[in-house]
Amino acid sequence: MNDHEVNIGILGLGTVGTGVAKILLTQQELLKTRSTLTFRLKSIAEIDWETKRDLNLDGVQCLTDARRVISDPEIDIVVETIGGTEPAFSFICEALRNRKHVVTANKALIATRGRELFKIAKENGVDLLFEASVGGGIPIIKGLREGLVANKIEKMYGILNGTSNYILTRMHQDELEFDQALKEAQAKGFAEADPTLDVGGGDAAHKLTILASLAASGMVDFNALYVEGITAVTKLDISFAKSFGYTIKLLATYRSLANGLDLRVHPTLIPNSHLLAAVNKELNAIFVKGDFVGDTMFYGPGAGERPTGSAIVSDIVDLSRDLLLKEGEQVSNRVIDPEQSVKVVPISEIYNRFYLRFFTFDKPGVLSKIAGVLGENNISISSMVQLETHGKDNYVPIVLLTHEASEAAMEKALQEIGKFEFVKENYLRLRLFEDLG
Amino acid sequence: MNDHEVNIGILGLGTVGTGVAKILLTQQELLKTRSTLTFRLKSIAEIDWETKRDLNLDGVQCLTDARRVISDPEIDIVVETIGGTEPAFSFICEALRNRKHVVTANKALIATRGRELFKIAKENGVDLLFEASVGGGIPIIKGLREGLVANKIEKMYGILNGTSNYILTRMHQDELEFDQALKEAQAKGFAEADPTLDVGGGDAAHKLTILASLAASGMVDFNALYVEGITAVTKLDISFAKSFGYTIKLLATYRSLANGLDLRVHPTLIPNSHLLAAVNKELNAIFVKGDFVGDTMFYGPGAGERPTGSAIVSDIVDLSRDLLLKEGEQVSNRVIDPEQSVKVVPISEIYNRFYLRFFTFDKPGVLSKIAGVLGENNISISSMVQLETHGKDNYVPIVLLTHEASEAAMEKALQEIGKFEFVKENYLRLRLFEDLG
Repeated sequence: MNDHEVNIGILGLGTVGTGVAKILLTQQELLKTRSTLTFRLKSIAEIDWETKRDLNLDGVQCLTDARRVISDPEIDIVVETIGGTEPAFSFICEALRNRKHVVTANKALIATRGRELFKIAKENGVDLLFEASVGGGIPIIKGLREGLVANKIEKMYGILNGTSNYILTRMHQDELEFDQALKEAQAKGFAEADPTLDVGGGDAAHKLTILASLAASGMVDFNALYVEGITAVTKLDISFAKSFGYTIKLLATYRSLANGLDLRVHPTLIPNSHLLAAVNKELNAIFVKGDFVGDTMFYGPGAGERPTGSAIVSDIVDLSRDLLLKEGEQVSNRVIDPEQSVKVVPISEIYNRFYLRFFTFDKPGVLSKIAGVLGENNISISSMVQLETHGKDNYVPIVLLTHEASEAAMEKALQEIGKFEFVKENYLRLRLFEDLG
Repeated sequence: MNDHEVNIGILGLGTVGTGVAKILLTQQELLKTRSTLTFRLKSIAEIDWETKRDLNLDGVQCLTDARRVISDPEIDIVVETIGGTEPAFSFICEALRNRKHVVTANKALIATRGRELFKIAKENGVDLLFEASVGGGIPIIKGLREGLVANKIEKMYGILNGTSNYILTRMHQDELEFDQALKEAQAKGFAEADPTLDVGGGDAAHKLTILASLAASGMVDFNALYVEGITAVTKLDISFAKSFGYTIKLLATYRSLANGLDLRVHPTLIPNSHLLAAVNKELNAIFVKGDFVGDTMFYGPGAGERPTGSAIVSDIVDLSRDLLLKEGEQVSNRVIDPEQSVKVVPISEIYNRFYLRFFTFDKPGVLSKIAGVLGENNISISSMVQLETHGKDNYVPIVLLTHEASEAAMEKALQEIGKFEFVKENYLRLRLFEDLG
C-alpha cells in the first residue's frame, strides 16, 4: 500500500465483478471523501473479453491469467467474483498465501470450505471478507459482526433466496402454480435455467451456514442443516395458508437452544402481522433477535450487479483500514474461528407447529382415523378444514394446523397416515413460524 | 491501552448508562471472543448513588466527579450518557481535549453542537462516535457510514421517534384520539411527562440532522429543517387516511435534489403496501435508497436501556481497533467534515402531494369555492370525500388528496381558503409519501 492508495485486482468480470468495477471506477471521489483513501482498480482477470460490457476500462490491466493478479506485488486486495468451487477456491488460497486480503461473494465456497479458507487466512495474517455472500447489498454481515457485537444472537430468521421469494410472492398475489411462477421468474432473470439450488433450499442453506457461523463464532457444518425447498408447495396450500392468516415463505431459521443450534431451511407459514410476511418479490430480509438489542430486521436486495458490488466495496474499504496497521497489530473482529466447531441439534429433536395437507378419498371415518394417529403420537390439532369434493375424482383436501409437537413424533405419525389406502401419497407437511414474543 | 485491555469510564448512570454497564459487566467473554480484546469498566461518575440499580459494581470506581473519569490517564474511552446540553457538552469537550475517544447517545448535542464537537475531536486526533443517537439499537450509523459506503445516498425515510409512532399506532389500531393515546404512552413509559420534544417532531429532527450530515459528509444546520409534529392529527384524519389506503406516520424525509437536500419531519400518509407502514408501536425503521444498493431498510427498537447499550458498546469495540493504530495513521471512515456545510432546500421550493381536511359549514357552493382556489394555484385534486353532517352543528368534514403541487402554492391557497367564513380555522394539511419507484 502506497501513500493511502489501495490497489485492487478483480478475478472474474461477470455480473458481480462488473458491479465492483463500476463502483471503483465511478465512485472514486465519494470513496475518497468518506475514507480518505484512493481506491485504484489496477487489474481484472477474465477469460471472456468478447462480451460487451458497459464499462470504460482505460488504465485498467485487462488480463486473462488470474495468477498475474494474485502474484502482483502491488495488489493489496483481491476480489474473487468467479463463483463456483474451482478454480475460485485455488485462486483464493493462493492469494491468501501471497498475503493478499481477499473479498468474495462466493457463498457456496464460504459455507462448504470456509474452515480451510479461514485457517489459511489466519496463518498468513490476512483477512477474507464476504459481506456480499449473504443478503446481497444488505450489510447484514457487518450488522451481526460489528453492529450487534455486544449481543448473544438468540434467534435469526432469514428470507435469503430471492428466486424462491419471487416465486412464492407471485403464487400468493396472483394465484399462480409453482411451475408458472418459476417460468415467469426465469423469463425475468430472477431464476436460473437450472433452478435447483434456489428452489431446493441449498442456496439459502449456504447463507444460513455463514450467518450461523458468525453468530456462533465457529464454523457450522453445512451438512448438519435440515433443508427443504419450495417445490412441493401448491397454489392450494398458499390459499389455505391465506385463509388461516399466514403467508408461506422459504425461511432460514437459527435458534440458539440449550443443547446446540437449531438450523433449518424450509417453507414456513408466517403470520401476516409479522414484518417478514411483508417481504415480497426478489427481496431479502434477516430478522435478528439479540439478548440486548431485542428484535431487529435488515431488508434489501439479495442479489444483482449493483447491490452485490456495493457490499463488496464496503468490504474493500474495511480492509483498507487494516492495511494501515502494523503486522501483528490487527485486531480482527471478524472471527469465525476455524478451529471451533458448533453443535447443531438434529431436526428430530426439534419441536414445531405444523401445517398438514392431505388428499383423502371422501368416505366416512377418514378424519377420525387421521386424528387418531396424530393423537396417539401426542400431536394435538389446533385448526382443521375439510372442503367438499367437486373435482372429477373423489379426493378431497383436508388441512390441519397442529399445536407444538416433536418432529420425531410428526415423522412417525406421517408414516402411519401415509399407509392408509384412502390417503393420496402427495401429502404435505409444512412448519409454522415460531412466535418471537 | 495496556496489552489489549481497554479501559472505559461512563459519565451518568441513568437508563442508557446502566445498559452500557450491564453489557460491559456481563458480556466480557463474548466481547473477548469476538474482538480479542478485554473491555474493563473502570469507573462511573454519577451524582445520584441512592437510586437502586440492578448492577453489581464490585471493582468499578463509583465516583461523583466526572472530571476524575475524564482526567484519568488510564481511561481509553469515555461514554457520555448524561444527556441534555450542559454539563454533557463541557465534559465531552474536555474528554476529547484529553485525547480520549468519546461515545455518546446524545442526539440533541450532536445535532446542534456537532460542528464544534467534531472539530475538537479532529484537532485532538480522537473520535467521537454516536451510533446510539439514532435508532437506538439499530446499527444504522454503521450501516450508512460503512455498510453503504459505496453509495451516494439518494433518499432516506425514517420512523425515528418511538413515542410518536406508539401514539399513532394506537390511534390507528384502536381508534383513540391523540390525547388518550398520549396518556396511555405516558402510563407505559413510552412518553415523557413533557412530551413536546417527541410529539412536536424535534427529537426526530435531531436524528434526521445526524443521518443527513453523515450521508452528505458535512454538517447540516438543524435549524434549516422543516419540522411539524403529530399533535394536530385527529382520529378522524386517521380514519380518512385508512379509507384511502394509507397509514399516518411521523416520517423524517431526506432527498438529495439537484439544488440541495430536502429535509423534513412531518406526519405523512404512507401507502399500506409500503414496508414502512407496517412499522408499529414504539419501533423505529430507516429506509435508505443508495445509488448502487437500491432500497434497503433497517428496523428495530429505537430506545431503551438494553438496545441503546448495545449500540454504545458496538462503538466502543470499533474505537478499540483504532486504539491500536499509531498516531496519525488512523483512517477515519466516520467523516462528518465539520468544515463542510450542506445546502438545505427551503420547504417552499419542495413539491408534494397533499392531504387536506376542512370542516366547512354545510351550504351550497362551498366545495366549488375551495376547489376554485386550489385550481387558481395550480393544485389539482386527485380524490375527494365529503361526509354528510350528523353532528349538532352544521359543519361537515371535506377531505381532499391532491396531485403533486408546490409547497409555496399550497401555502398561498390555504391562506385564501382559511379566509372563507364557511371554513373552520382548525383545518389540516398533511403530506403524502413520495413513491420510491
